Amino acid sequence: MTTRVLTGITTSGTPHLGNYAGAIRPSIEASLRPDVDAFYFMADYHALIKCDDPQRVARSRLEIAATWLAAGLDPEKVTFYRQSDIPEIPELCWMLSCVTAKGLMNRAHAYKASVDQNTDKGVDADDGVTMGLFSYPVLMAADILMFNAHKVPVGRDQIQHLEMARDIAQRFNHLYGGGQDFFVLPEVQIDDEVATLPGLDGRKMSKSYDNTIPLFEGGAKATRAAVMRIVTDSRQPGEPKDAEGSHLYTIYRAFARPEQSAQFRRALEEGLGWGEAKEQLFALIEDELGPMRERYDALMASPERIEEILQAGALKARALATPLMERLREAVGLRSPLAAAAPKSAAAKPAAKKARFVSFRGEDGGFRFRLQAAGGNEVFLSESFDNPQSAGMMIKRLQQGLPEDALQARGGSIELIMDGVLVCRLPESELPALRAALSEL
Amino acid sequence: MTTRVLTGITTSGTPHLGNYAGAIRPSIEASLRPDVDAFYFMADYHALIKCDDPQRVARSRLEIAATWLAAGLDPEKVTFYRQSDIPEIPELCWMLSCVTAKGLMNRAHAYKASVDQNTDKGVDADDGVTMGLFSYPVLMAADILMFNAHKVPVGRDQIQHLEMARDIAQRFNHLYGGGQDFFVLPEVQIDDEVATLPGLDGRKMSKSYDNTIPLFEGGAKATRAAVMRIVTDSRQPGEPKDAEGSHLYTIYRAFARPEQSAQFRRALEEGLGWGEAKEQLFALIEDELGPMRERYDALMASPERIEEILQAGALKARALATPLMERLREAVGLRSPLAAAAPKSAAAKPAAKKARFVSFRGEDGGFRFRLQAAGGNEVFLSESFDNPQSAGMMIKRLQQGLPEDALQARGGSIELIMDGVLVCRLPESELPALRAALSEL
Repeated sequence: MTTRVLTGITTSGTPHLGNYAGAIRPSIEASLRPDVDAFYFMADYHALIKCDDPQRVARSRLEIAATWLAAGLDPEKVTFYRQSDIPEIPELCWMLSCVTAKGLMNRAHAYKASVDQNTDKGVDADDGVTMGLFSYPVLMAADILMFNAHKVPVGRDQIQHLEMARDIAQRFNHLYGGGQDFFVLPEVQIDDEVATLPGLDGRKMSKSYDNTIPLFEGGAKATRAAVMRIVTDSRQPGEPKDAEGSHLYTIYRAFARPEQSAQFRRALEEGLGWGEAKEQLFALIEDELGPMRERYDALMASPERIEEILQAGALKARALATPLMERLREAVGLRSPLAAAAPKSAAAKPAAKKARFVSFRGEDGGFRFRLQAAGGNEVFLSESFDNPQSAGMMIKRLQQGLPEDALQARGGSIELIMDGVLVCRLPESELPALRAALSEL
Repeated sequence: MTTRVLTGITTSGTPHLGNYAGAIRPSIEASLRPDVDAFYFMADYHALIKCDDPQRVARSRLEIAATWLAAGLDPEKVTFYRQSDIPEIPELCWMLSCVTAKGLMNRAHAYKASVDQNTDKGVDADDGVTMGLFSYPVLMAADILMFNAHKVPVGRDQIQHLEMARDIAQRFNHLYGGGQDFFVLPEVQIDDEVATLPGLDGRKMSKSYDNTIPLFEGGAKATRAAVMRIVTDSRQPGEPKDAEGSHLYTIYRAFARPEQSAQFRRALEEGLGWGEAKEQLFALIEDELGPMRERYDALMASPERIEEILQAGALKARALATPLMERLREAVGLRSPLAAAAPKSAAAKPAAKKARFVSFRGEDGGFRFRLQAAGGNEVFLSESFDNPQSAGMMIKRLQQGLPEDALQARGGSIELIMDGVLVCRLPESELPALRAALSEL
């Protein structure tokens, strides 16, 4: 069983070395594990919340895609796409809005923090807050639930948003599921192991501190220039250095094998000069980045190649999003009028159709089928089977008639069990429809 | 010049006689005027806000479509579509969310009324309020702005929502327009002439008062039965009746020609019995509804025919929505990576492209063109021309070179005027780009 892991990257900036070591590299490593089914996407709808500079958004979408690909992301293994290429996402966002309590959003930490700030400043509580910012957790829930991700690696500040996504999923399942769950409840994955790289001044590397080391932008020259600006103490060459206490060493460790780190540490403690240490650090970083930078430059020179990869990713993503959205539309009532007409108006019945079984691959990767009545209504949706053969066998047996001992009452509903395998659950009131449909196959 | 008029009908109920006389009939009449370009749509995303019964939403979508068509709506003349068939609408809704101040939504009357009610009850202010309900004016703005409607006929309770749509449009135009306006500012159209039909008990006919006369559901029999239940005073046949004071007469007038009304009034004043008066009223209504009901039943019996009409409507609507959405995506930065790559990275330039003119039909029905630089950036968007020939002539002249006297400084920007006709306005800083693009054609 693979675990579906989903991560979004907001496209409002240019990745720096800290993003690479803290997020991009570990995510790419995780995506290579055979038990991981990774969904990585560029969150460009989210970018619109905080960035109204179209040039920056456009440029960032490109740079981030090129960075991930250059850093070794395999778009064949990973589903790598742009949020704005999946029209099902804003649609799902609206559907989820209609089941999300406004009170839930009122309690979001990020929103509350901005209200507190405004109150302290003596301005209106919602000053500067857009509906995009306020609804952000709903869009994030749509991102996650659209692909039924099991795990979402997030920072601690995002745990609450994940809980909100679970709340919203549960509410939708409860309101519209009728016993079947449309959405997997996503789980938080906190990775405290991942290094936050210090910046030039020793604080966390961040654009807002203006202490970043560039990743690819500006070439090796820019990376080197930044490394040379890393702040150190004033000990001279020959004087022993406090390696553990220097963030230069912390950065070094993020790129070195353990034995390399140990050697570098020893050299510092034995008096290696900061200037020489910086040269060694730059050489180490460049060892890793150099080949990537070549790929990055090549990709940036062929934006049409990036576009091709992203379009292929969108196709892969939509192969899941489109059928799920079809089921969701059916569930909330935005369904084909043929099905809608059936229940009340006898005159509206389309020319005698037969009941039938419909098999498909579920979002969880399992194989399911549903029994559709002659009018088009769903009678039941099966449990998930490991392979199409098992599902097919159940269909075949049902086509031969319903074994009376197959139905067992349990907890207010009926279970259909054949050969000791649970095929589906349905409410007792649906039994006549089940019998009718089986006789109309 | 035609006026684009847009109306949405929420699909959460079955139309009754009051809906017909107060909304459907006058809207259809208005749509037949040659100077009106009517956009009527089924607001099924809005229905999800107040209705979580999928059967009702599905059924209502069908009944409302069949009702409008049966009542004489011409889908060839009108753009008649279902909101949920236009994926650009939820996408635009998200874009608009990002420029909508939350404070604006806080001030919506409908939301404030529900907060007041909750406060009176002593429960949480946002009790029972979903994000769908709270964001409703943003979705409504998307509905209107997507098609650049000039006029939106609304009840007085909706005036504020229209003002919000204008606010949101202005904010987007200001943030992203760079001199050109993406959105027309829609105007309210209050029609105080339109009759609100009284119900059986004399109050406004409304499902919530349980005093409605059915339109098509239940056939002529159900309509007749309801008419017979209209409340009157207890005057006997032969006694003079107060026609003006009776809502039976008000309903009669809504379906009669003036001379018929006058005659009916006289008959009542001369002692016509209420029973007989009701028979006359039913006959009058049935005269109008009878042929429609036949069409309605035929349509309800062929939901695939309704679906065909709505699909054709969606195509018509999307022929406008898709190109506008493309421009909006470009404006906010969700643009083709080819254009995004051009400005900063010389290496990223795609194989030498030429500058070019692109002509198209604007949302206002006029003909426009834009000049696109070799890198894909827009240099200017032209004013709107009455016909493609005038626009084409301007393009031709510009292709031959820029006449020096064509440029005139005015109010901080430059106007490009040829033959006394304003072609476009652009900031002075764009002049080099203009000259460069014209030389690269």
